[in-house]
This record gives sequence, C-alpha cells and structure tokens, in this order.
Amino acid sequence: MNRSHKAETILLREANDDDLELMMAWRSNPIVYRGFYLQREPLKYEEHYTWWKSRRNRKDWIITFQCGEYTRDVGSVHVSSLDSDSPEVGVYIGEVTAWGRGFGRQAVSLVLTWLRAAGYKKARASILKDNATSIGLFEALGFKRISEEHEGEWVCEL
Amino acid sequence: MNRSHKAETILLREANDDDLELMMAWRSNPIVYRGFYLQREPLKYEEHYTWWKSRRNRKDWIITFQCGEYTRDVGSVHVSSLDSDSPEVGVYIGEVTAWGRGFGRQAVSLVLTWLRAAGYKKARASILKDNATSIGLFEALGFKRISEEHEGEWVCEL
Repeated sequence: MNRSHKAETILLREANDDDLELMMAWRSNPIVYRGFYLQREPLKYEEHYTWWKSRRNRKDWIITFQCGEYTRDVGSVHVSSLDSDSPEVGVYIGEVTAWGRGFGRQAVSLVLTWLRAAGYKKARASILKDNATSIGLFEALGFKRISEEHEGEWVCEL
Repeated sequence: MNRSHKAETILLREANDDDLELMMAWRSNPIVYRGFYLQREPLKYEEHYTWWKSRRNRKDWIITFQCGEYTRDVGSVHVSSLDSDSPEVGVYIGEVTAWGRGFGRQAVSLVLTWLRAAGYKKARASILKDNATSIGLFEALGFKRISEEHEGEWVCEL
C-alpha cells in the first residue's frame, strides 16, 4: 500500500528572547489578533518586551513544523496561571496560510499532555464566542463551556 | 549641554534562511502589504521559500535597531536587478508600531551608499501612487518620478 498522504507532525520548543520579534509580528497581524480574547491592535515592542520579561507562572512554546529539508516556526502555544489548579491554555498559528492543517490542535494536545504529566487535573481556555475555529479545536480536545452565562470560558478535565 | 533626545540609529545585517519566518510574518500583515507594489494577500511559505532560494542579482538585509540592552529586528530593505545599470530598491518596516521613526529612510539611505560604493550610477523604486509615506521617504532621498505616464516608477541619480 502506497500512502502518499502523511500526517504533518509538529514539535514544540520553548520560546526565548530571540523569538520575540517573530511572535510580535504574528500577533500584530489583524488576521491573527481578531481571534484573540484580549487584543484589538498591533503590539508595541517596548510594552511587549516589558510584559515578556515580567511573565510569571507561564510557559510559551513555538510550534515548529518539519517539512522535508526545512523546519519552520508556524505559531505559538502557551499556558498561564501555572500557580492555580486550572492553568489557562492559549494558541495561535501566526502563519495564516498554514491554517486548517491541524497544527493548533496538535499543539494544544501536546500542552494538555504536558499539564497532565505535571499533575494538573484541569485546564481552562478563554475563547471569543464568534471564534468558531478555536471553539471547534478546543471542543475536539474535550473542553466544555463553563456555563451559559460565561460563554467565553471553557474548561477541560485532564 | 545635556541632549536627552538622541537620534535612533539602525544597522543592516544580511538576511539569511533563519529570517524567513519573520520576513514572511511581516509581509503577511495586511497593514504592511497594502503598501506593496506587488502583493495582495498573505504569503504561502512554500512559494516564499522557493522564491527565496531562487533569488538572483539581489540582496536582502534585515533592519535592526539597537535600543539600550536589546537589539531588535524591525524590517527589511533589499535591492534587486543588480545585473542592470539601475538596481531597484524596496523597503518595509514590518513592526508596524515602529513606523514614523525614520527607520525606513535610514535603511534606504544606507543601501544607496552601498550601491554608490559598488559603482552604480542610478537606482530605481516602484511605489504605489497612493503610498504617501513611501513617496515622501524616497523623494527625501533624491528620487524623482520617471514621467507622468509611469507614475509608480521612480529613479535617483547616485
């Protein structure tokens, strides 16, 4: 059997200072940030840098994709509130023409595995109510709306 | 005399394969590419990579900006048609919140110096007729419209 169609596999690597410009470039694209829960305009470097350096109880990864001879960075996934019993997961694929290939879902799945291994029992996500793509992604991984009143808040038993 | 206001100085470094994602992220931002002469949608990595690897008679630099403790990448400048007697210069500041600080103008000025040193006598630029910022930038550096009929084509004696 000759299967020419192969699943595309992503890997996560921890984000570092050298990734700041790339993450800021992705996050400053209106096509990307219109899906964000908090952000309505392009980022300012100084604010982003100050925020980045003051992060606590949070991990950020770069989503990388291996394709033949080259590896490329396509987006970012993070988990925050690691000092709580239900950390919050967020993800974006910054390379907008790479949407729809399952990279975001794979990335969140890896982070849920990481959280489970770290002993957490729950994870949360905040999703804009009209972001159907994100809702589909998180629902497929077991997230449920907390309640009708808080329709942007999602939770997952790990 | 205590001058607290200091000019912000940029440096150019040659772009390499590791800059591809960043350049693509910048160039895939509608706020950026609406100013481009040729491009009406976000870039696709495979096409961008193939184009990048097949570049000839062209140099691309990353515009970097030193600010206190950190250096950051803010945009790109290039020169193409180096096999002609009037190479074409193009520039963009990908970090959109860094617009208006003269980074683009400094970058093009450095490239004109580079072209002069390499023995070229003329440089060209293609600019959308409603891109007032670019027109102002290139005019300030000595570029003039080639003719009324070709209003997007500019030339500069080096």
